[in-house]
Amino acid sequence: MSKPANTISADQMREIGRRIFTACGAPPEEAEALIREMVRSSLMGIDSHGISSIGQYVSEVKSGMVVPGTPLRVITEHGALAVVDCGFNFGIVNAVRAADMAVRKAGQSGVSCVIGERSHHVGRLGTFVQRISEAGQVGIAFASSSTKYRRWGGVAPWGGREGRLSTNPIAYAVPHGDWPILFDMTTASVPKQKLKVIQRTGGQAPSGSLIDAEGRDTTDPSRVLAGEGAILPFGGSQGHKGYGLALLAEIVSGFLSGDRFSPEEKEGRYCNAFCFLALNPEASCGLEVFGTLMADYRRYIESCPARDPARPVIMPGEIERRTYQERSRDGIPITREEWKHIVESARSVGVEL
Amino acid sequence: MSKPANTISADQMREIGRRIFTACGAPPEEAEALIREMVRSSLMGIDSHGISSIGQYVSEVKSGMVVPGTPLRVITEHGALAVVDCGFNFGIVNAVRAADMAVRKAGQSGVSCVIGERSHHVGRLGTFVQRISEAGQVGIAFASSSTKYRRWGGVAPWGGREGRLSTNPIAYAVPHGDWPILFDMTTASVPKQKLKVIQRTGGQAPSGSLIDAEGRDTTDPSRVLAGEGAILPFGGSQGHKGYGLALLAEIVSGFLSGDRFSPEEKEGRYCNAFCFLALNPEASCGLEVFGTLMADYRRYIESCPARDPARPVIMPGEIERRTYQERSRDGIPITREEWKHIVESARSVGVEL
Repeated sequence: MSKPANTISADQMREIGRRIFTACGAPPEEAEALIREMVRSSLMGIDSHGISSIGQYVSEVKSGMVVPGTPLRVITEHGALAVVDCGFNFGIVNAVRAADMAVRKAGQSGVSCVIGERSHHVGRLGTFVQRISEAGQVGIAFASSSTKYRRWGGVAPWGGREGRLSTNPIAYAVPHGDWPILFDMTTASVPKQKLKVIQRTGGQAPSGSLIDAEGRDTTDPSRVLAGEGAILPFGGSQGHKGYGLALLAEIVSGFLSGDRFSPEEKEGRYCNAFCFLALNPEASCGLEVFGTLMADYRRYIESCPARDPARPVIMPGEIERRTYQERSRDGIPITREEWKHIVESARSVGVEL
Repeated sequence: MSKPANTISADQMREIGRRIFTACGAPPEEAEALIREMVRSSLMGIDSHGISSIGQYVSEVKSGMVVPGTPLRVITEHGALAVVDCGFNFGIVNAVRAADMAVRKAGQSGVSCVIGERSHHVGRLGTFVQRISEAGQVGIAFASSSTKYRRWGGVAPWGGREGRLSTNPIAYAVPHGDWPILFDMTTASVPKQKLKVIQRTGGQAPSGSLIDAEGRDTTDPSRVLAGEGAILPFGGSQGHKGYGLALLAEIVSGFLSGDRFSPEEKEGRYCNAFCFLALNPEASCGLEVFGTLMADYRRYIESCPARDPARPVIMPGEIERRTYQERSRDGIPITREEWKHIVESARSVGVEL
């Protein structure tokens, strides 16, 4: 396959992904779900969690960190709540299954909670709440990184000067016409991924986002990425709020499950833990009524005059919706280096592009 | 009853509250629940939501804004989710009942969601998650103010220059020994109550918390309280996160219910709407296992060296716990003016203190 100009179409990228991930040993439906969500993140402009991760995922399969084909296993189930073992299948694959389980349970019970353990990297947390919203439900999600095997807990608790928390994201999606109200944030003042980009390009982190090992403000990402000092929780002078939200994300995703796997059972692997909540408007007031209320509410919020007339008030997820439309039409931007990396990853599992 | 020196004991205050609220027409168990929670907030140092509200609540009964004795009415119920009508009983009374309903439902289903409409002022949102945690469950709560009859939507959406949101709080509590991990925040950069205090004392609001009608930064609370300009969502330069969380709080508390009461049925009254989620550790891993994990986690977080050695890292709710202990021993501070106001409120319903 020849290198596309500066972009690649979503269809072409999905076809490539299917070939690569099935060659990795993923059953066809898993390869399909995985590349579908990765391409969707790229279409939305969230490049850090899109097709740029193909190479990483392939190498993690080869090193045994990821075990394609592993089913989602229910550890415990009690009414509308379940704890599931993701068994180190691709994070996206088994977390999508967990989101679907949350939808089924909220279909029965009006509300549900599914907590996942031993998950490989879940990628963009918004993926899963978006999926819940597409089933007509409100999705709320929390995630954290490995607890017993904490590899990188680089975010300081409020007032502290060492990392104790991961960047613990919180996301939600509300069904709304053909695109949800979609919100996805880290509780840290800067995501680790962004720090790496800043380091690579020789830039400075935003002031008020990092501290050094003595607890003094710094804008140099390199020491923090090396494990000295820490990222501050988000919130500026109200960082105690970011801290409190980070704790909530970690408690409901990492501990409410029982955190029952020993370090040996995690085999030293990076783990994500997640907690998905689904709230079913069909059970509370009917999806149609809810949809009308959301449309009115959106108009009311967006009718607010802007501080800068060039930047009107928008709902969360609107920038991603526009990028999704543009890239669906024009293709996903891809550099020569990124394409080369994908070709090499494919070749490493016997796929010639 | 003679004016206490500078403090009043919790027992004495509860006795006074029972007499006042039963004289207002509240059945004994409602008067008891109401004053119990108000005194608890005062003991915790949250004076804005404690016994200082007695006068306001009495006058709202007299003006017909509050209807003591109104039971919690289930509007719709589907499995583990319910929407309830608080019918303008005291906000605290019927929201406590809604929290208890959430606990019962999560006892059966592992997770539950109870959404309340037509609530009088709920006061401190932490009250209800604290109650859920005392039943051994994790409580998460969201609240907003009246939607169809929006009296004071003084918080701007991100990028906007007019108020469209209320100060929409989020709270959670995690069972943990004899005092929960307890977090209670507004999604606004400054609570309205605090603005009133600043105005009264002639001070300035924190920079970055307010804008004037032209969207310029200001520290003058008076124009904002008069309805010009707005409070900014919390988060400083990441105020889009505070905005996103404010929307979530409003959507799940104010709209997921169906917001089914017409303006006439709200009779022009100030309304709170709330959404309580309860997650039951007994269903996911057992409360004892969860308790051990939380104790370990707390030690891990609190072991973080502090930036300022005089201010060690603490868990949310710890300051309130200490104040609760001190005031339980030493009494609740009360000024001559506050005492006079309580005596007059009592007299207005025929109670001589």
